[in-house]
Amino acid sequence: MKASRVETVIRNMRKNGLEQIIISDPDSMYYLCGIGYDPGERLMAMYLDKNGNAHLLNNHMFPQEPQDGLNIHLYDDTDDYMGMVAGVVKPGPIGIDKYWQAKFLLPLLDKAPGLEPKLGSPAVDEARKHKDAEEIQLLRESSLLNDATMAEVIQHLGDGMSESEMARFVAETHVKKGADTTIDQLVCYGVGCSEPHHSSGKDTIKPGENAIFDIFTPVKHYWCDMTRTVFYKSCSDEQKKVYEIVRDANLAAEAIIKPGVRLCDIDGAARSLIENAGYGKYFTHRLGHGCGLAIHEPPDCSSVNQGVAEVGMCFSVEPGVYIPGKWGVRVEDLIVVTEDGCEVLNKFTKDLIIID
Amino acid sequence: MKASRVETVIRNMRKNGLEQIIISDPDSMYYLCGIGYDPGERLMAMYLDKNGNAHLLNNHMFPQEPQDGLNIHLYDDTDDYMGMVAGVVKPGPIGIDKYWQAKFLLPLLDKAPGLEPKLGSPAVDEARKHKDAEEIQLLRESSLLNDATMAEVIQHLGDGMSESEMARFVAETHVKKGADTTIDQLVCYGVGCSEPHHSSGKDTIKPGENAIFDIFTPVKHYWCDMTRTVFYKSCSDEQKKVYEIVRDANLAAEAIIKPGVRLCDIDGAARSLIENAGYGKYFTHRLGHGCGLAIHEPPDCSSVNQGVAEVGMCFSVEPGVYIPGKWGVRVEDLIVVTEDGCEVLNKFTKDLIIID
Repeated sequence: MKASRVETVIRNMRKNGLEQIIISDPDSMYYLCGIGYDPGERLMAMYLDKNGNAHLLNNHMFPQEPQDGLNIHLYDDTDDYMGMVAGVVKPGPIGIDKYWQAKFLLPLLDKAPGLEPKLGSPAVDEARKHKDAEEIQLLRESSLLNDATMAEVIQHLGDGMSESEMARFVAETHVKKGADTTIDQLVCYGVGCSEPHHSSGKDTIKPGENAIFDIFTPVKHYWCDMTRTVFYKSCSDEQKKVYEIVRDANLAAEAIIKPGVRLCDIDGAARSLIENAGYGKYFTHRLGHGCGLAIHEPPDCSSVNQGVAEVGMCFSVEPGVYIPGKWGVRVEDLIVVTEDGCEVLNKFTKDLIIID
Repeated sequence: MKASRVETVIRNMRKNGLEQIIISDPDSMYYLCGIGYDPGERLMAMYLDKNGNAHLLNNHMFPQEPQDGLNIHLYDDTDDYMGMVAGVVKPGPIGIDKYWQAKFLLPLLDKAPGLEPKLGSPAVDEARKHKDAEEIQLLRESSLLNDATMAEVIQHLGDGMSESEMARFVAETHVKKGADTTIDQLVCYGVGCSEPHHSSGKDTIKPGENAIFDIFTPVKHYWCDMTRTVFYKSCSDEQKKVYEIVRDANLAAEAIIKPGVRLCDIDGAARSLIENAGYGKYFTHRLGHGCGLAIHEPPDCSSVNQGVAEVGMCFSVEPGVYIPGKWGVRVEDLIVVTEDGCEVLNKFTKDLIIID
């Protein structure tokens, strides 16, 4: 068990009026005890109470090292494993992991009468939101790998690869450089760039179109996530104009980040720049999302989050402009909030790039 | 909407005493309306009531075609989307998707007083458990692709690829042959074969060891899943003996499958053969799992499932023997239950193979 992280979580539980919580998010379990992976459809859950009693319930097929301070309960597929969970919890309020599925929660409520389920994840997420020094170093290394990948893959624009072939090439390049696993990437060309969540398909790029490379992968469990928009063969005046608006919106937001600044104001710094340029209605999503052991985690950097930036937070800054049926631009970095500003983890250039 | 599938689900809802359900499993949504994908951390849910009223709630970032009989509600990230769900449901019992996360379920219970949540998935799973002709054809094509992949990849044993490199090579071969996407595969060598859920790592294979290729991928949304155990350079008498026990257990189970036979007895046919040979304690998991739009779905073919095989069910038959710290063997096919037996979807040989 990572004692200082467990202590922070218990402190947060007390603040939230919770004496016990169930954690099922593999990343949160990994954060607290170094054991955490996707158990597929099977139950894997950690129980933690205000006194630091910790239990891990897991299928015996997933072997793990014993550790101090953690009671490991293994079950077989044919065991009454929800009964085992019911035997560990106590009646009264209980924090439930936001990701816990109804197939576990509803049977537990049947088997353990008197439980009052509440969302328990804030206690863990609040801890995870503030990266410690070890985590920040891992995030730096992960984004450096992403920078190197970006530098390599954009040179292959125009080699005839479709969006999905290029996406696969990015994933393979990530792994070649040391990423944990192959992750489906988001590569868009031309009109595909007009959809923020386009699925990479069979189109190849044509001269005069641009490409969005939104690339991300875990490295030693910590995610990187960066987007660059690059042009193929040429760039029209309108493309250049929109690119610079989006890039400047990214820079404007990064420029004001420091402890105490509201996240909605960071979103606003980028958004108002795009609005003032007349493209506001085409920036259709939040500015950013937290990133760490998960690629999407708190804090949300959006127009409705009045929380403030705090030292150790890591989130993306990714303004975009998407002109329906035509094209789009996004520029994204990961940043970590420092004592007096922020550290931009991505060093890859944001100058306008035309690949020939 | 796929009318006959919706009708079956509603019939099952009535049987289960449910007048309304929430479906969030992307595969179940795809099954019913052809729209279904992982929305990441965002809400995507379908509501269906006993009269066939159907609603889909989804983020506006995921565009979709309108369709007859489906009310599509789109929300922005900043909208009160759980309030939108609360506006659609009615007080009283409601079936909840087994995969629905607490972060949606608990706020809905707060916003819509009088809801009585119960597990609702059986109504959909029961329908999905019986594949229709269109689905069986898709499952056949998927497993054919898997057979062809197996034939190709095992020839590369001994080319110096580590487990994880070979796993990636399998995934790339799947995609080259037409699979939907790149899926991390399970390849084990030597002692890694002694863990049923080993993570493919950096080991390369040594002469006299065996390899387990547990390979699977979706093809046009329908999964294949097959395991073969092959030997490298040589095969000892004990290896040959255990291989034949496991292979014969696979054949024994497949031989008794027909409508009306209990799933626990199918598991038992394989298990008793392995037990009688003295290896029972090393067969540490269920015989098989259902497979279709999901790689793991009902029915469970295990020693505790007294349900019976029914026409159109598709499940895996995968006995294994795992000798801790030493090695292991698994042989797996997918089968579909027919009127008078079963169709084994995998045609790849189960003869003992030694790669030279």
